[in-house]
Amino acid sequence: MRTLIVGGVAGGMSAATRLRRLDESAEIVVFERGQYVSFANCGLPYYVGGVIKNRSDLLLQTPESLASRFRLDVRINREVTSIDRRERTVTVRDTLTGDVSTETYDRLILAAGASARAAPSGLTTSTLRTIDDVDHIESVLSARPEGATAVVIGAGFIGLEAVENLVHRGVHVTLVELSGQPLTPLDPEMAAPLLATLQEHGVDVRLGTTVLGASAGNLVLALSDGTTVDADLVIDASGVHPDTSLAAQASLRIGASGGIWVDETQRTSDPFIYAVGDGVQKTDAVTGEPLLVTMAGLANRHGRAAADSIAGQPEPAAPALGTSIVGLFGLTVALTGWSEKRLVAAGRAHRIAHTHPASHAGYYPGAETMSMKLLIDSETDAILGAQIVGGSGVDKRIDVIATARAGGLTASALTRLELAYAPQFASAKDPVNQLGYVADNLRAATSRNIQWHELAGALAAGAALVDVRNVGEFDAGSIPGAINVPLDDLRHRLADLPPGSLIVHCQVGQRGHTAARILAQHGFDVRNLDGGYRTWLAGDSLRTTRTTPEGILV
Amino acid sequence: MRTLIVGGVAGGMSAATRLRRLDESAEIVVFERGQYVSFANCGLPYYVGGVIKNRSDLLLQTPESLASRFRLDVRINREVTSIDRRERTVTVRDTLTGDVSTETYDRLILAAGASARAAPSGLTTSTLRTIDDVDHIESVLSARPEGATAVVIGAGFIGLEAVENLVHRGVHVTLVELSGQPLTPLDPEMAAPLLATLQEHGVDVRLGTTVLGASAGNLVLALSDGTTVDADLVIDASGVHPDTSLAAQASLRIGASGGIWVDETQRTSDPFIYAVGDGVQKTDAVTGEPLLVTMAGLANRHGRAAADSIAGQPEPAAPALGTSIVGLFGLTVALTGWSEKRLVAAGRAHRIAHTHPASHAGYYPGAETMSMKLLIDSETDAILGAQIVGGSGVDKRIDVIATARAGGLTASALTRLELAYAPQFASAKDPVNQLGYVADNLRAATSRNIQWHELAGALAAGAALVDVRNVGEFDAGSIPGAINVPLDDLRHRLADLPPGSLIVHCQVGQRGHTAARILAQHGFDVRNLDGGYRTWLAGDSLRTTRTTPEGILV
Repeated sequence: MRTLIVGGVAGGMSAATRLRRLDESAEIVVFERGQYVSFANCGLPYYVGGVIKNRSDLLLQTPESLASRFRLDVRINREVTSIDRRERTVTVRDTLTGDVSTETYDRLILAAGASARAAPSGLTTSTLRTIDDVDHIESVLSARPEGATAVVIGAGFIGLEAVENLVHRGVHVTLVELSGQPLTPLDPEMAAPLLATLQEHGVDVRLGTTVLGASAGNLVLALSDGTTVDADLVIDASGVHPDTSLAAQASLRIGASGGIWVDETQRTSDPFIYAVGDGVQKTDAVTGEPLLVTMAGLANRHGRAAADSIAGQPEPAAPALGTSIVGLFGLTVALTGWSEKRLVAAGRAHRIAHTHPASHAGYYPGAETMSMKLLIDSETDAILGAQIVGGSGVDKRIDVIATARAGGLTASALTRLELAYAPQFASAKDPVNQLGYVADNLRAATSRNIQWHELAGALAAGAALVDVRNVGEFDAGSIPGAINVPLDDLRHRLADLPPGSLIVHCQVGQRGHTAARILAQHGFDVRNLDGGYRTWLAGDSLRTTRTTPEGILV
Repeated sequence: MRTLIVGGVAGGMSAATRLRRLDESAEIVVFERGQYVSFANCGLPYYVGGVIKNRSDLLLQTPESLASRFRLDVRINREVTSIDRRERTVTVRDTLTGDVSTETYDRLILAAGASARAAPSGLTTSTLRTIDDVDHIESVLSARPEGATAVVIGAGFIGLEAVENLVHRGVHVTLVELSGQPLTPLDPEMAAPLLATLQEHGVDVRLGTTVLGASAGNLVLALSDGTTVDADLVIDASGVHPDTSLAAQASLRIGASGGIWVDETQRTSDPFIYAVGDGVQKTDAVTGEPLLVTMAGLANRHGRAAADSIAGQPEPAAPALGTSIVGLFGLTVALTGWSEKRLVAAGRAHRIAHTHPASHAGYYPGAETMSMKLLIDSETDAILGAQIVGGSGVDKRIDVIATARAGGLTASALTRLELAYAPQFASAKDPVNQLGYVADNLRAATSRNIQWHELAGALAAGAALVDVRNVGEFDAGSIPGAINVPLDDLRHRLADLPPGSLIVHCQVGQRGHTAARILAQHGFDVRNLDGGYRTWLAGDSLRTTRTTPEGILV
């Protein structure tokens, strides 16, 4: 059995090594168009920033090491240019010599990944996808050891990592983002801390803005906001699209999302051809619909699954949640599943819970506050998605929620998770349990909440806003129109409250919940502002600092 | 409706505040026999160590704050001495004045917790359970600012936390533990790093040892190993038993485990009486059998559940996994569910997987190695338990596994978890995914493994041991009797291998797996030493350093 693999990084190499472990006698040939295989692509930004100091640390394997350990025939500088499905052959071009050859296969795995979108005309951009990319960036920065300028296009995961690392290198960075917020998979109020953090670190953030073109040989860029910016370096992190050229040439089925269609064992529409990684279409865990998501974890896992399939022990792949995480100057942002804006756009009924817990017991030093958001199916109480922003412990909580979702636990069932507690690691009621309690109160209708972006409408419709924080907190900053009745005084001041619909709020939502319970039992029509002043302020801050109003879906 | 609550810390206070939020009109009276309510009991060791600097940080609430926010009637220095179930009254003694009164109830919640076991005769010990305890310890240490000595009895969670914090304070500590290892809920090879860490920090660890008694007014203790040790302070952390005195006096049903029997809504055998916390019996998540487990998280959660029940919205409690964690001089140890020794003792068929992954991508600075162990049901592939020892990221992985178990995911399904990956947080295949891959290979019989404690028997029965690490690793330390054939040479040296049964191993198990796959496909009868040299060495080290051989069940 001869298996050819097109692409020698995450998905391709996972497939190759797994296939060897399952089948010692298989013939396995890997074609990589670049000169490196199995490199640390997720580490590239950190090499630019000097966090990873040695270039050699990025090179995890060589053709030689893969040959001796796994008996793989790894051929670098080889581009597969076409597939002949009838003859089961591929045409391979040597990118150094131009020589062309034909190779036969019994099974073929496509793992060519994704490609950057085309840059605006007149612009020469770098991507952050290959060793060659970072070598180029390094050469530009080395030539300009002080005062270098860079424009990063796109405030997604790679864009944010590029910004952080360029700032570490002393580069002055302008971040140009088409939408009205950084990291568009997040809802805006959860993205607000990212914007604040970027600005605190001197990044010139231009939201709702595009690069129109370059003059003076790329050194001055014209932006859609009418300004120009200097750029020794332009990094295009505006996104990628699946590289389906080979699949399309061979008339393999392309999915509705634009990625190569595969069944749940990673087999394409041709039973002898498999495909894995950023080039293939995934299945959305929430809806079962086609989805594009480009994550290293999925690429690796699906590469292994393709090998299992070829070796005759197929395992159905799990659908994709899009769990992801990014660090930015000490801030950690993580998400899984669907956002509020996606749910709103899809018209799917949902409940929302925002909390702002401490990463561990408040009495133990070093606790950091995180902001959590949970999206819940109104009908089934299923977990649809979550977003978390904060410092330590963010990665833990997103993984717990993603696992709960994978196990089919409802939002209310998060209350019953028995998580590890000692005061330096968590709270006796872990932040995930607490989020579950809020969700459970919504499910049981013990609480009714209102979202930060619904507040203005409710007040315009005549509701009154009661801030139940203490006087000092109120005086330090409050929501326009709120009256202040501290929670501990509330029972004695019921007569001071206006008639009609009430909205209560505190700093993070917890005292507001207690206040709402008191008032509801005294006959008031009351809702609690979800996530309190902090969530409202985050949403409001992005609303007022963004460049264009169209960018935010709320 | 008048609800009385006996005990004003974790479970009792969770019940009281939840009940108030659900029922604004309820009359709620809390009796606490000490002078403090709702204090940070899990923080007490860290106050002794000076990590938590202010005593006031331990006092989370006062009767006054609970009255103003939650309209609770909290009475400190009040001991409930008996229950009259027929009249629905309790007798309350004022511990300061000795005055006795009678209080009526509609519902009663018992949350009196657990009590320390009796100390050996002649010995005056401190526990680490109350504010009074830490005030006493503080007074002893303050009087002896240099060169103080302490004996800690019991190397469980509290004992280890006590040791760490006393060492921080400059105290010379002798740790006396009856069994043959620290932290007996762990299997011995997983406990070995704890012992090494204790010894590296100058702790005099006496395993398989008990305190026989004291002479010279507690200043010299006689140990069962025939030695004597000085002790300005003796901390008894040898364990607790449920405080069931009140329940027994009232003839409430006591469970087979010795804790107060409750149904899944925390109701005792008397429908008007509930019980929560360390005094009650839990249900084992693995077997459904009665279980005693004293964890703050369960106490808090069950307190809330009792309130839900009383307020007419009962929610069945989840069974207990015993998920727990402890930090010790930077080492983190966490576990959930059943250990190997419990499974062996119960005669339950199981599979085991050991791994030693990095906490995040190895090419990103700061990755720390952790050791993981997964216990798997042989029949169903269900997750039965897990143990993890290491540095950063241990808490995350135990929580993910506990959540997977709660969601009913199998061990093999851990491969499909989509966890958050960026190189500073995890690997593209997270340590939990990797553990799942090992488990899945066992399930599919792609791998056969052998445990560290089975090796000697297998070698005695004629198997040969092949170390597939490189020559430098082999020369730095190897298992007696192993021959060295590095993995990358293995395919060329098949003829050098002895006939008959083979056991292969590497450093952590991964190269051993590849070697075993190669050999199995060449017709060898081969097993991989699970967890490699590292797990074997850990098991072996505890075997050779322990004081008495009886302590370890293997």
